[in-house]
Amino acid sequence: MNKNTKVNAAIIIIGNEILSGRTLDTNTSVISIWLNSIGIQVKEVRVIPDLEQVIINTVNELRKNNDYVFTTGGIGPTHDDITAESISKAFGLNYEIHKEGFKILEAYYKPGEFNEGRQKMIWMPKNAKLISNPTSGAPGFNVENVFCLPGVPSILKSMLGGLKNDIVGGKPIISHTISLKTVESEIAKSLTLVQNKNKDVEIGSYPFFQAGKLGVSIVIRSEDQVKIDQCNSQILEFVNLKKIEIVNRN
Amino acid sequence: MNKNTKVNAAIIIIGNEILSGRTLDTNTSVISIWLNSIGIQVKEVRVIPDLEQVIINTVNELRKNNDYVFTTGGIGPTHDDITAESISKAFGLNYEIHKEGFKILEAYYKPGEFNEGRQKMIWMPKNAKLISNPTSGAPGFNVENVFCLPGVPSILKSMLGGLKNDIVGGKPIISHTISLKTVESEIAKSLTLVQNKNKDVEIGSYPFFQAGKLGVSIVIRSEDQVKIDQCNSQILEFVNLKKIEIVNRN
Repeated sequence: MNKNTKVNAAIIIIGNEILSGRTLDTNTSVISIWLNSIGIQVKEVRVIPDLEQVIINTVNELRKNNDYVFTTGGIGPTHDDITAESISKAFGLNYEIHKEGFKILEAYYKPGEFNEGRQKMIWMPKNAKLISNPTSGAPGFNVENVFCLPGVPSILKSMLGGLKNDIVGGKPIISHTISLKTVESEIAKSLTLVQNKNKDVEIGSYPFFQAGKLGVSIVIRSEDQVKIDQCNSQILEFVNLKKIEIVNRN
Repeated sequence: MNKNTKVNAAIIIIGNEILSGRTLDTNTSVISIWLNSIGIQVKEVRVIPDLEQVIINTVNELRKNNDYVFTTGGIGPTHDDITAESISKAFGLNYEIHKEGFKILEAYYKPGEFNEGRQKMIWMPKNAKLISNPTSGAPGFNVENVFCLPGVPSILKSMLGGLKNDIVGGKPIISHTISLKTVESEIAKSLTLVQNKNKDVEIGSYPFFQAGKLGVSIVIRSEDQVKIDQCNSQILEFVNLKKIEIVNRN
């Protein structure tokens, strides 16, 4: 992919436990930060239930509209782990034992421990490319631009590094944050003027309440450091004029 | 709505800060748990950027397919707060000053403090119904089956209680969790049999690693306590047979 082209991705979080509120999704944040660092911007996240047709439809819609799609969850050994079979159907591929994956898990477990439940984890779409799992053996897999990762955050995190060679990003997205001791309404007008002068820079304004302090973080994001610096100067100009205290800059 | 009908909802998280990974979304979990308690099941969550056309399309798609839609974020005073204007366009309604909202904020702020930035917060779709905000004054709003809430978690949380009269759920969804000292592959086959015998109960299996302990939580969910009890007995049967230690039940 051309280094000047914007590269985007979608994330699909598969799991009833997120939709019921029982489990907080932390995978979106981990994947997004990692993707940003290699120049890929996440355009959309969907959290969907463990339902085959929903998984198939969502994957087929998002893989057409994004350079990359990442799924998390549903690749374990139990009955509610239906991601691999659903992805096979989404691509019209056979769902079968992955020979290379079989060898990996056969070697990983002690003799006799590679039981039927564990063998389910290497049923995959035909010819899927494995994603290596340094934490717990069972690999993820990749078909075309879709990358399927586990739901357990620590395992997922350990697998991202192994994707480097298969994913090509654009320019890394840089961000700069200015945290101010103020309220949004005090800076809204000035900040709008800065945004209007810098249309292709993403400027976000986020109120915070931390340790009894009320404040606003302004986040400037772009692939271009020069544009970030320009925005930053224009913001500091009105901040100084209004005599607003700067709490933090990073 | 009939108490026997399943009632469902979708959540739309609006905000670049979630997509960039800078901010962890905790609102999904808070809203979902509250909805479960009043008998509403969340079927889908979408995280989308602060882009007008994306907001319009997403709201229009999801409000057709769900009994209720909740949006979070983008109703503050700054340039990146475009939810109210986008919702107006989604419904084909005028975007204008809400008279009742104006009075509320005029009374909330000290004389002279209800400035242009703050006034932006009561620009809303024509005839929107206000959602009261006990924490920071500025109300959310409701048009048909779409409820627009702020992104700041503490404020959002304080506003949910005020929605009780506008939202009618079905039977509350009950859940029972059995946490076991085992691994998923040891129980996968037995759990599948239980799921097959109890098709209309949702049984989830979630590995956990806590304080050095490796385990699996089995979560049984249904509107029907009798069905949960039946499933529970069948699970305990194979747990006892396999001599698996029960860590926790709740």
